[in-house]
Amino acid sequence: MTTHNTPEDQGTRLEKDLLGELAVPAQAYYGVQTQRAVNNFQLTGVPLSHFPKFIIGLAMVKQAAAQANTDLGLLEPRRNEAIQHACRRIIDGEFHDQFVVDMIQGGAGTSTNMNANEVIANIGLEYLGHAKGAYQHLHPNNDVNCSQSTNDAYPTAIRVGLQLSHQELVESLAALQASLAAKRDEFADVIKMGRTQLQDAVPMTLGQEFGAYATTLGEDIERIAGMFDLLREVNLGGTAIGTGLNAPPGYADLAVKHLSEVCGHPIRLAGDLIEATSDMGAFVLFSGMTKRLAVKLSKTCNDLRLLSSGPRAGLNEIRLPPQQPGSSIMPGKVNPVIPEAVNQTAYQIIGNDLAITMAAENGQLELNVMEPLIAYKIFESMRLLRRAMDMLRLRCIDGIVANREQCRAWVDQSIGLITALNPYIGYENSTRIARQALETGVGVLELVQEEGLLDADQLADILRPENMVGPVHSG
Amino acid sequence: MTTHNTPEDQGTRLEKDLLGELAVPAQAYYGVQTQRAVNNFQLTGVPLSHFPKFIIGLAMVKQAAAQANTDLGLLEPRRNEAIQHACRRIIDGEFHDQFVVDMIQGGAGTSTNMNANEVIANIGLEYLGHAKGAYQHLHPNNDVNCSQSTNDAYPTAIRVGLQLSHQELVESLAALQASLAAKRDEFADVIKMGRTQLQDAVPMTLGQEFGAYATTLGEDIERIAGMFDLLREVNLGGTAIGTGLNAPPGYADLAVKHLSEVCGHPIRLAGDLIEATSDMGAFVLFSGMTKRLAVKLSKTCNDLRLLSSGPRAGLNEIRLPPQQPGSSIMPGKVNPVIPEAVNQTAYQIIGNDLAITMAAENGQLELNVMEPLIAYKIFESMRLLRRAMDMLRLRCIDGIVANREQCRAWVDQSIGLITALNPYIGYENSTRIARQALETGVGVLELVQEEGLLDADQLADILRPENMVGPVHSG
Amino acid sequence: MTTHNTPEDQGTRLEKDLLGELAVPAQAYYGVQTQRAVNNFQLTGVPLSHFPKFIIGLAMVKQAAAQANTDLGLLEPRRNEAIQHACRRIIDGEFHDQFVVDMIQGGAGTSTNMNANEVIANIGLEYLGHAKGAYQHLHPNNDVNCSQSTNDAYPTAIRVGLQLSHQELVESLAALQASLAAKRDEFADVIKMGRTQLQDAVPMTLGQEFGAYATTLGEDIERIAGMFDLLREVNLGGTAIGTGLNAPPGYADLAVKHLSEVCGHPIRLAGDLIEATSDMGAFVLFSGMTKRLAVKLSKTCNDLRLLSSGPRAGLNEIRLPPQQPGSSIMPGKVNPVIPEAVNQTAYQIIGNDLAITMAAENGQLELNVMEPLIAYKIFESMRLLRRAMDMLRLRCIDGIVANREQCRAWVDQSIGLITALNPYIGYENSTRIARQALETGVGVLELVQEEGLLDADQLADILRPENMVGPVHSG
Amino acid sequence: MTTHNTPEDQGTRLEKDLLGELAVPAQAYYGVQTQRAVNNFQLTGVPLSHFPKFIIGLAMVKQAAAQANTDLGLLEPRRNEAIQHACRRIIDGEFHDQFVVDMIQGGAGTSTNMNANEVIANIGLEYLGHAKGAYQHLHPNNDVNCSQSTNDAYPTAIRVGLQLSHQELVESLAALQASLAAKRDEFADVIKMGRTQLQDAVPMTLGQEFGAYATTLGEDIERIAGMFDLLREVNLGGTAIGTGLNAPPGYADLAVKHLSEVCGHPIRLAGDLIEATSDMGAFVLFSGMTKRLAVKLSKTCNDLRLLSSGPRAGLNEIRLPPQQPGSSIMPGKVNPVIPEAVNQTAYQIIGNDLAITMAAENGQLELNVMEPLIAYKIFESMRLLRRAMDMLRLRCIDGIVANREQCRAWVDQSIGLITALNPYIGYENSTRIARQALETGVGVLELVQEEGLLDADQLADILRPENMVGPVHSG
Repeated sequence: MTTHNTPEDQGTRLEKDLLGELAVPAQAYYGVQTQRAVNNFQLTGVPLSHFPKFIIGLAMVKQAAAQANTDLGLLEPRRNEAIQHACRRIIDGEFHDQFVVDMIQGGAGTSTNMNANEVIANIGLEYLGHAKGAYQHLHPNNDVNCSQSTNDAYPTAIRVGLQLSHQELVESLAALQASLAAKRDEFADVIKMGRTQLQDAVPMTLGQEFGAYATTLGEDIERIAGMFDLLREVNLGGTAIGTGLNAPPGYADLAVKHLSEVCGHPIRLAGDLIEATSDMGAFVLFSGMTKRLAVKLSKTCNDLRLLSSGPRAGLNEIRLPPQQPGSSIMPGKVNPVIPEAVNQTAYQIIGNDLAITMAAENGQLELNVMEPLIAYKIFESMRLLRRAMDMLRLRCIDGIVANREQCRAWVDQSIGLITALNPYIGYENSTRIARQALETGVGVLELVQEEGLLDADQLADILRPENMVGPVHSG
Repeated sequence: MTTHNTPEDQGTRLEKDLLGELAVPAQAYYGVQTQRAVNNFQLTGVPLSHFPKFIIGLAMVKQAAAQANTDLGLLEPRRNEAIQHACRRIIDGEFHDQFVVDMIQGGAGTSTNMNANEVIANIGLEYLGHAKGAYQHLHPNNDVNCSQSTNDAYPTAIRVGLQLSHQELVESLAALQASLAAKRDEFADVIKMGRTQLQDAVPMTLGQEFGAYATTLGEDIERIAGMFDLLREVNLGGTAIGTGLNAPPGYADLAVKHLSEVCGHPIRLAGDLIEATSDMGAFVLFSGMTKRLAVKLSKTCNDLRLLSSGPRAGLNEIRLPPQQPGSSIMPGKVNPVIPEAVNQTAYQIIGNDLAITMAAENGQLELNVMEPLIAYKIFESMRLLRRAMDMLRLRCIDGIVANREQCRAWVDQSIGLITALNPYIGYENSTRIARQALETGVGVLELVQEEGLLDADQLADILRPENMVGPVHSG
Repeated sequence: MTTHNTPEDQGTRLEKDLLGELAVPAQAYYGVQTQRAVNNFQLTGVPLSHFPKFIIGLAMVKQAAAQANTDLGLLEPRRNEAIQHACRRIIDGEFHDQFVVDMIQGGAGTSTNMNANEVIANIGLEYLGHAKGAYQHLHPNNDVNCSQSTNDAYPTAIRVGLQLSHQELVESLAALQASLAAKRDEFADVIKMGRTQLQDAVPMTLGQEFGAYATTLGEDIERIAGMFDLLREVNLGGTAIGTGLNAPPGYADLAVKHLSEVCGHPIRLAGDLIEATSDMGAFVLFSGMTKRLAVKLSKTCNDLRLLSSGPRAGLNEIRLPPQQPGSSIMPGKVNPVIPEAVNQTAYQIIGNDLAITMAAENGQLELNVMEPLIAYKIFESMRLLRRAMDMLRLRCIDGIVANREQCRAWVDQSIGLITALNPYIGYENSTRIARQALETGVGVLELVQEEGLLDADQLADILRPENMVGPVHSG
Repeated sequence: MTTHNTPEDQGTRLEKDLLGELAVPAQAYYGVQTQRAVNNFQLTGVPLSHFPKFIIGLAMVKQAAAQANTDLGLLEPRRNEAIQHACRRIIDGEFHDQFVVDMIQGGAGTSTNMNANEVIANIGLEYLGHAKGAYQHLHPNNDVNCSQSTNDAYPTAIRVGLQLSHQELVESLAALQASLAAKRDEFADVIKMGRTQLQDAVPMTLGQEFGAYATTLGEDIERIAGMFDLLREVNLGGTAIGTGLNAPPGYADLAVKHLSEVCGHPIRLAGDLIEATSDMGAFVLFSGMTKRLAVKLSKTCNDLRLLSSGPRAGLNEIRLPPQQPGSSIMPGKVNPVIPEAVNQTAYQIIGNDLAITMAAENGQLELNVMEPLIAYKIFESMRLLRRAMDMLRLRCIDGIVANREQCRAWVDQSIGLITALNPYIGYENSTRIARQALETGVGVLELVQEEGLLDADQLADILRPENMVGPVHSG
């Protein structure tokens, strides 16, 4: 645990653990256990620092734990002061590049926890005027990790990190909903054919269509908030398996109280710490929620691509704002690249949900050792959702224009119009005229007039937009 | 649409629809459109009747709709009376064998809706003293389906059916929880090793372990109830695409009011009927909930199989009640067949969730045409969950016995015990002794005494069960 | 193990196993262990008899094993004769209703294996003139299961059953391919717009489009055959864990030789029986193959639904044969119900693949205990594929007609046509004219002529179908 | 398209496309279309350069296409020379940092293709002595992309890239197999209990167990090679939709011939280019193969964790080499971190397979627009597999030691031993003794001797390792 690195020696320092000595980059704030993990796990190439909210969550947990330990007399005030200092700087965004372990790792998060412990210890040592690695003055395990186990500190940090990501996600979702709602209003008077099973159904407005998108996303704002409440329940103080072995009485409540203050969200201690240590149910359910949102976004984007198909040999009811040339071979082609990218993002999120599900199912006994993958995939899904929604809003929805003429033309030539006449001319007549129209290519309104079933004025009245797109009494 | 079938003529009757005439079994209560669907869809071999709650849901919707239509003067009282009669009998469990269409079907549920319309019409015709197929007196479309479209009646019936299944599911879950809680109490004094990452960790009680199972399942009771609230929102009255075209003003509210009465649960009309017609979000989320429960059950059963591994070359901490001989070749072998079956059920449910997810994502525009698959898989998952939980409770949990001696023996020979001594002899000593124990095979307690770090009385005190399985102050 | 059932006593008979006595229906050919399994596993409601090929596979394995045992002097000829008789009758389709265990079961298939052993024993006893249950004359374990364990007999039977299903699957696939190829030829001269990203691309023929469907399915015929070779490798003779304990030397080779003869397919003994006993890789890969075929079918059906969208407000390039009325509310509506049902079937198959994957991953040590689920889902997926393909061919593809006028109209009004002019008028001109056409609504050909870039004759030549739908030199 | 950037002007240059002008970093080798894509797609944060083999594949396709164009007189030799130069440098590993587009992107790969076209053009311009962006001398579209569309060049590049990754994957797999095979030989004489359903079954050797792992992975070497053949079939020359519009006759064959030479693997032109342009079947099947390998690795790692469970309260049959301290709270704890990380990697790969499946299913008509996600996830899965296998081999398998005493002890105290005595003392006796042993805790061998069923010599003979772990005749 000696360090001999001087300014002119930019090489390495030696640190020691259970398995022996190992060289660590002299300037690194992380230590031997982090280095071992870096050596062991070279898998995704995605380090912890890829998810800043997660790192902030780790720092918040360490900060709260240190305060609780000090309150209980387990950690001397000067050491606590150093830890508080270090955690605040990490929370402010410093030192994130020191979180270098791969997101996929064995050890149920021990490497992540130790990465945090070591970085905090070394920042604290610097604050106290000691060299990096002089852990006798501030120890990653004995001080920073005091009263904790990876098995309670780590999942708590994940939950805190996810809550910090919450606000952004909901904001992006709300902004997208507002954007769709604006289109709902803008297109309120654009009459178009509704389609069921891709077949002409009955008329509606384009505003109703976009309103439905706004509604469906809006529902998830509240749902996501509800889900987040699940993530407020933590097992801090449970230590290794939830029995709280080696954590002093009162520690858990104190630590959770401090954590609530530090992160500015109410945090709750789980009632059954044994259960809370191994259970991944909150993550499974929350991931299911991200999947639901992904499905809704993907369905919406499928629709946008269908409605904007064309420009000539398609439905051509809306035009998406062009974002890039569509083809190196086909001049003038502009593609719906933004919704296409959202679709793909959704499929990745659905794939992530499966990975999370399998990881959750394969936990064993008192701990779920697959938790690093769960954390990785949930943070990734949340960020992808947010970015995809922002992209969709700014680069697509806001710039959509209606092709009013085409929308109307589809209605006018539609056979589905006959449904609206059903209450006036009867189902038998309707069916007969529908078939005749289909066979002859003549419009249904023309046929109705030809047969004298309704005159032009009556038709005009029945087919007024306001009469077609909501329930009316069949006079 | 004539029927000449007499008792001596057990053959067929002819019915007619848009596509022409078709023979229907003379005694069948279903009609031509059902017959076409039976001919078209021979896929799973699982007919609608496989899910009685779904059929009851259909009847309830038809009953409520008929009443609303009568209130509004659209359906004459005598016809309504016949429909009410027919629906009540179906709700009481009669005529379920007449629901013959395959659960997987094209047409977004039209065939299911028509199967219901036709069966109700023919039961009603019988009640009115008419022959089957004499639809001029009570028509599947004009009367039974009045003011409805498949696109609102069908998804409403699914939701009603799922709510009817709700109670059973929650009861099975609560009974399983109670069973686990009883074991928690029964095993409260059985000291055993907790294991993390399958490695010896620190002591706990077997009661705590079963308590965690009870807790984790208990959480889902409330969650499932919350989810069911989502399914209370229906689009009845939206007709084809949610605009309510051809449904009279007031119909939707009236129909929903009657539906609440009929099914005895509060039902709500969705605020945005366009959205409610195409959105599958409630099903996706509810399926995600079944997945979460399946994951929890599967994890629990993985643990039960691990803990009962042996009888000699395994952990052997618990014994599951034997349910059947385990092997045709290995005498005396008894296998954990019940948890194994639960695991497999869980995987099927997780697979169902994926099928539902893909079906939801592939809806287009104003309707999700994949809804039959969604209904099929959700009803199946719910039933599988219920049956698996009942099986697990009655044939496994209730009969589990603890192998107290083995549990204690693992603790006594464990190295993990050293963790409990950590606060007394220090981390350095602990680590050294742990390594020594591992290398020599000598017990850690023996080594601690040998070195004079603690005497027998101190050890006895520290290692008292009540001191090991909950937080204590590091004296 | 006594049986006192006489014709007038249609009640039960008592049988006995390791766990004690149990009543079995007097007329049942199955015995006590089957009855226990029936009592234990009430999950899916789908009994073994749902999959006849699987039952035949079981009988074939038992038949081959009995012959090998007789060859080796372990089974007396008279008993073998009875077993051969019983197996042949089962292979011929008799007694399938006696295979009553749920497809999802614990015990790694022991219940299925014992169901087969017991039914064969009792048929054999009847043949030998003994009462059901008089197992001293022909024993389910000692005779029928001689030299076998569930762990080798059961997976071998699954493989044999799948091979028997192979022929049907490939025939359905080949017939569907032929049907699509016929449409390829029929539509060879129907010029239409090709679409990429749902945007107008360049012209092609409808024949080319259907030809692509035929090609893509055709590829899978060969692939599936290749996959089936994987399933030819069995672990018969490995007994409990692949070491062959208690099977006599030479038995494995003999049994496999007889099995090849009985099932008429070459069967191979795995080189590493330990591996072959626990490995589910062949099933995972084969299921992946069913998934690939499902994906291709689903994509094809998505296309069919898109191309037939309309009839007025859609692409309307092809018309699918109507199979049933499409709507109870919209007169004349006919929906693409057949492709819709194929899509849903595909999602179920993809869900099945996931269930199989999870089951395979969760095998442990010397056996995969989740094999019953794997067998269930693979047999189901194969049957669903076959039925869906037959349905698609007979009720959809064969009756598709082209809407030639509409196809041509899309081309004529298309902007994508300009791509074909690219080599003649340059990319700059093409881009400019494309944009102009889009803004003004004037056709691109008209604009090209107006500007004098090409004259009518040149255009006619360039745009001749044969020049547009294959590579030509940019003269 | 002018560039005025001088060394002192490190700002931006303006480039122009269909949508207007856009600033590009002056030193960037990529151009306007790449810049648009970077602005559009900020999703995963994973740029193309994350997958070097993919970039090399792009360069190889461009190199081959340029040569074919020159052969056909469509590209002047000097321009070809510049392109050849640029491609070779990229293939040699230069300029990869210029491939900056996000792996998830809309546009079906157009942005990736244009990124390649622009980088190659600007490297070529430098070679020709022109400024970046002086595309009149070497044009990304007209020259580099000549005779190509994204829709043929891009999927061809993916296939080439995957083939280049092939060798590494197979090498890692073969090395892992060899490592397991070495353990098979090393542990050939370690007798242990085989376990089925986690219950004691019959004896085997630890060598047989590791041999099974070696066998199961070995099977995939050949399988993967077979799969790669699928990826040799490309659609180069099909241009936009496979009709080859605007590619000269003979181009496709020439380009493929050159591509075979450039990449040193035989490449085949697909027979049906329309099909080959939209079909994702090869990727689905190959991904299914990665899934199968992931499942096998995960099952193997599950076993390793089980077998090394302990050190005291578990099976403890093998010891994995310690790689890092296992716990911050439990002294001396060392966890199976390497297999745990492999498990998680496997779940990610299985999740990737689902994302690929959904992407493949959602292709429409003449192109699968989700191809970027498919490429992303397949490249990722292949790399993860390789890295996980290397990690598993070097940091786990190679250092595994057997705990011979414990292995033997489990056998000696096992009840499963009785199975081996079955042929000698009969099934009845065996079952009785097994039950007695279980109830009394006395060993089965002791009981057999006590009862005088077999004497010590006989037992010793029967239980000799070589007699227990392979088939012997039941004397």
